[in-house]
Amino acid sequence: MNTLYFSPGSCALASHIALAESGLPYEIRKVDFGANEQRSEAYLKINPKGRVPALVTEHGVVTETVAILAYIAQLAPAAKLAPLDDPFQFARMQAFNAYMSSTVHVAHAHGRRGYRWADQESSIQDMKNKLPQSMRDCFRLIEDGMLEGPYVLGEQYSVADAYLFVVSGWLKSDGVDIAEFPRVQAHYQKMRERPAVQKAIADEKAA
Amino acid sequence: MNTLYFSPGSCALASHIALAESGLPYEIRKVDFGANEQRSEAYLKINPKGRVPALVTEHGVVTETVAILAYIAQLAPAAKLAPLDDPFQFARMQAFNAYMSSTVHVAHAHGRRGYRWADQESSIQDMKNKLPQSMRDCFRLIEDGMLEGPYVLGEQYSVADAYLFVVSGWLKSDGVDIAEFPRVQAHYQKMRERPAVQKAIADEKAA
Repeated sequence: MNTLYFSPGSCALASHIALAESGLPYEIRKVDFGANEQRSEAYLKINPKGRVPALVTEHGVVTETVAILAYIAQLAPAAKLAPLDDPFQFARMQAFNAYMSSTVHVAHAHGRRGYRWADQESSIQDMKNKLPQSMRDCFRLIEDGMLEGPYVLGEQYSVADAYLFVVSGWLKSDGVDIAEFPRVQAHYQKMRERPAVQKAIADEKAA
Repeated sequence: MNTLYFSPGSCALASHIALAESGLPYEIRKVDFGANEQRSEAYLKINPKGRVPALVTEHGVVTETVAILAYIAQLAPAAKLAPLDDPFQFARMQAFNAYMSSTVHVAHAHGRRGYRWADQESSIQDMKNKLPQSMRDCFRLIEDGMLEGPYVLGEQYSVADAYLFVVSGWLKSDGVDIAEFPRVQAHYQKMRERPAVQKAIADEKAA
């Protein structure tokens, strides 16, 4: 059994969608950020970083969305969630996911978690003010090239699509209208129609 | 031929070391950040993100250190730069690299590139002031658990070691004494003895 630790609305939804697509057995466990459970002694034993997602497997714990997504794809080759037999296409997928993680998610985090990088209230507010523009800059690159269409890698669906879907879903609360990016918007709507996406969202709500 | 675009002192050194270890044919090309060459029309055609590293291959361009490192390891299986036959160990390596990219490198970037996330001079200074502590927090986690020792994954050397080596090398300029982290320091010194590391550093200097 694989157990995914998640927080609702977080990037863990990407890994959750991948699990729902994979056909692998799994369960989800909610980490209550409202009660600061991510810093509890019990959770820090699972993930000393105090973050989600964390995937507990029979072999051990895997953290970081980029790693979890590729791992799920590798564990479930029949689900065709990554171009596993083509190192260059796999690298393209990894590059996309790494950009989401190290640039787009990081830009987003400055809207709510600026305290990670600065202390003064004025700095935190400054970061919040800049958030829409930095997200726009990221999505301009995605719209104009990284998203090949209809899926990230073109015709082949992959775990990168789950990641893009989740981060696209943050645009509204970050002060950006997804309609500014028609190809991203079409991707988002296409993703919402997938049964695995609907199941993952419903299961997080019910958890 | 593989061509790695780099800037001296940047995270591109990790990919450069991996290439030097791989036995693959490659060349390096310096991107002159002093002349803002990373924003030149010619370079943006290679990498629209205007960043390094970028690896130009016969198949196309790969960006993002996390993706390039895994790709080099997959292209050169005989060099044993990653646990390619063990998905869980590969995921552990990817998780380490993703942490370096999305958390440690990001913390470091707030010391020099705070303008990415804020506009006011006071915010930029605030970020600089917080830099030593945020780097310390990251390296505490690396020292206490992520670095299994002597290499990141234990006895097996991997591209994750090249990445850790490069980021450890930033500690001094970030106001942190590497000696605070004895296991990281031992790893750094061990890495400096590797011929591929010495070659990559010398070749960047000569470029």
